[in-house]
Amino acid sequence: MELLPKDQLVFNWMFDTIRATYERFGFTPIETPAIELSEILLAKGGGETEKQIYRFMRGDTDLALHFDLTIPLARYVAEHYGDLVFPFRRYQMQKVWRAERAQKGRFREFYQCDIDVIGSLNPLIDAEIPSVIYSAFKALGLDDITIRINNRKLLAGFMDALDVRSKAMEILRAIDKIEKQGDSAVIEELVSLEITEKKAGQILEFTKMTGPNNEILSSMEALAISNDLFQKGLEELRTVSEAVKAFGVPEKSYKIDLTIARGLDYYTGTVYETILNKYPGIGSVCSGGRYDDLAQYYTDKELPGVGISIGLTRLFYQLCEAGMVSPNQSTPSKVLISHLGTGYLGRCLEIATSLREEGINTEVYFDSEKIGKQLQYANKLKIPFVLIVGENEVKSNSVTLKEMRTGEQRLVTLAETIKSVKSTF
Amino acid sequence: MELLPKDQLVFNWMFDTIRATYERFGFTPIETPAIELSEILLAKGGGETEKQIYRFMRGDTDLALHFDLTIPLARYVAEHYGDLVFPFRRYQMQKVWRAERAQKGRFREFYQCDIDVIGSLNPLIDAEIPSVIYSAFKALGLDDITIRINNRKLLAGFMDALDVRSKAMEILRAIDKIEKQGDSAVIEELVSLEITEKKAGQILEFTKMTGPNNEILSSMEALAISNDLFQKGLEELRTVSEAVKAFGVPEKSYKIDLTIARGLDYYTGTVYETILNKYPGIGSVCSGGRYDDLAQYYTDKELPGVGISIGLTRLFYQLCEAGMVSPNQSTPSKVLISHLGTGYLGRCLEIATSLREEGINTEVYFDSEKIGKQLQYANKLKIPFVLIVGENEVKSNSVTLKEMRTGEQRLVTLAETIKSVKSTF
Repeated sequence: MELLPKDQLVFNWMFDTIRATYERFGFTPIETPAIELSEILLAKGGGETEKQIYRFMRGDTDLALHFDLTIPLARYVAEHYGDLVFPFRRYQMQKVWRAERAQKGRFREFYQCDIDVIGSLNPLIDAEIPSVIYSAFKALGLDDITIRINNRKLLAGFMDALDVRSKAMEILRAIDKIEKQGDSAVIEELVSLEITEKKAGQILEFTKMTGPNNEILSSMEALAISNDLFQKGLEELRTVSEAVKAFGVPEKSYKIDLTIARGLDYYTGTVYETILNKYPGIGSVCSGGRYDDLAQYYTDKELPGVGISIGLTRLFYQLCEAGMVSPNQSTPSKVLISHLGTGYLGRCLEIATSLREEGINTEVYFDSEKIGKQLQYANKLKIPFVLIVGENEVKSNSVTLKEMRTGEQRLVTLAETIKSVKSTF
Repeated sequence: MELLPKDQLVFNWMFDTIRATYERFGFTPIETPAIELSEILLAKGGGETEKQIYRFMRGDTDLALHFDLTIPLARYVAEHYGDLVFPFRRYQMQKVWRAERAQKGRFREFYQCDIDVIGSLNPLIDAEIPSVIYSAFKALGLDDITIRINNRKLLAGFMDALDVRSKAMEILRAIDKIEKQGDSAVIEELVSLEITEKKAGQILEFTKMTGPNNEILSSMEALAISNDLFQKGLEELRTVSEAVKAFGVPEKSYKIDLTIARGLDYYTGTVYETILNKYPGIGSVCSGGRYDDLAQYYTDKELPGVGISIGLTRLFYQLCEAGMVSPNQSTPSKVLISHLGTGYLGRCLEIATSLREEGINTEVYFDSEKIGKQLQYANKLKIPFVLIVGENEVKSNSVTLKEMRTGEQRLVTLAETIKSVKSTF
């Protein structure tokens, strides 16, 4: 994805908005190199990943571009363990690379915006995460969302009880497809795993329990499944679900959803997905979960954590497709200073310096062109204000302020100009 | 380079400060993919570059990581020509990769912060550039700088007059080494190019003209060299030098310096280097110049331009080495909300939401620990304010505000807290 300036400005605004939200919750930035040793990135193995990695030799060194920010985080925490304060609340917003087959809406180079809290088992952190998600999307003007919450222990315990736990990974992956492929396809897949049709039905029935959060919790309690993992998951889910409200997330914006499994095998507790209610087809725009051990391949320190990721490049693309991105300007400039002759440029430059000192993004038109051409330039870039400086303005120590949207123009002091422009920020 | 949070926060502040300055002057952001086709990146050829590039095959496609931002800009402008408004003022702040030999202060993955104005020959743009440089470094707290300016046409014309122009590139490269290697080494190198010792002396004498800007300009005029290129260069340098002041750059901060040659062969007019006066050994921290044709390998449109680049990663490293970087906090949090028992966490969360809505970066201590341990956490991360919430505070609808620097604490309303914290921004 390569953007024109008008779109890049929107993209950057989204990036900055997410970043500001992460910092608002006390997450601290780190950045890791794009190139790591392949043995680090592939320590965990994994077939799909290995195929998608950009990997190359440099001399005798086997290198690759990182394909997510979780593995680099694990390596970072292991490497700098002694210098970090735990629980370690970090955010990381960088490009990652995956050599996916080219298709619409899939990018080989894209931004991930991750937060993780490392080194704590406290379920209040699990309850805080939806609050960060909600705040970020609200700040993006996308507050009509549903954050779906589940707990992996519940389903794992239920599978234990059904004696099909040995096929847990495959079952979880099948369940993740309910929304996309429908019930019967999932049943079929479960049966193909040599699970009896009855048990497959029970699994599906279990994951499809719906209703208000407290009803789902009650129904699960009523199942009276005597399995420790199940009971622990139920307790965690209850704690998180009840605490989310205290974190300021409206009740309608989060929902227990037992179909959320998150195929990735490292999640072990709470899992999250986030849906834009008006665009459910887009799928989850922010997902994540809790894991028992972040960095087992890099350190023997046990590091539990919980985190989520916003795939910003894909989100931006999808919002564009849905017509929800309205680029405004093609420049950050709020003001173009134009002149009625290059002899007035000296005064233009003085004014520019004054405006910039007030934090107003300002550019000066340098070329010797008629005022019409200068206004045309402002129009093309959609600069909202043009100042005109000529003989009158210099003599009266003022400027002509033209608001491009209305076409209205008036002779004002510099102080008034600054006030008018700032009032539109 | 991989940073701990405290240093990453300083680095990000520098990045944001440079970015804000670029936007203040109406430069608009673009971002290009890190991976480009090798044939694009290497269109111009060049031995050193080719050796330093990270290049790899993906299927049948020969790819590489960009090693500067100028070539991607050229490709971008050629590709999106019809959608851009000229003069095109763009900034681009991205990582680039060069497989340099590992040595202190050299990084294989580093940030460049570039601005360029494309599509105009107006020398006022050349005069504006030092103003951007000065503003950026001033905003970084580094305003004790000298921006050295020269014009490549001057020396080229002078070489014409001496009839040694055919060796121009080699001579320019030799001259670039004056500061590092001294006069006699440069003379020796010039003589080795089969330039007579007399002419070598004249070249050196020419480049070493010193004095106030207007004196240098007069001395060059007095040389009365009847060469068009020389006279054009002299006129350009005079225009730029005289205009710089009008752009608000203090006179002591810019200086004509005829030793500045910028070895790169694409510069054809004004060239810039920037020195931190207290740390001249660091070398130039911001360099660039004017070129006649940006994108000759990608389009037949002639695109003159002028630009500069700040090598942020290297600058940050050097400032650290010079002891000029003083990390402050290890988190963006301004406030930690602590509790005298987890029963008060509900109130803590309400307060946190209020503070965040006021734009105050805030985190809550979740674990059931004594207040001492909670304060210790704030101390380690250097969070400036801690709020304490217990029975008293809940009953009186107030909070205990502790300023960590002084240790002072007092019972205040939430409104007072917000005011106190904001007053320190």
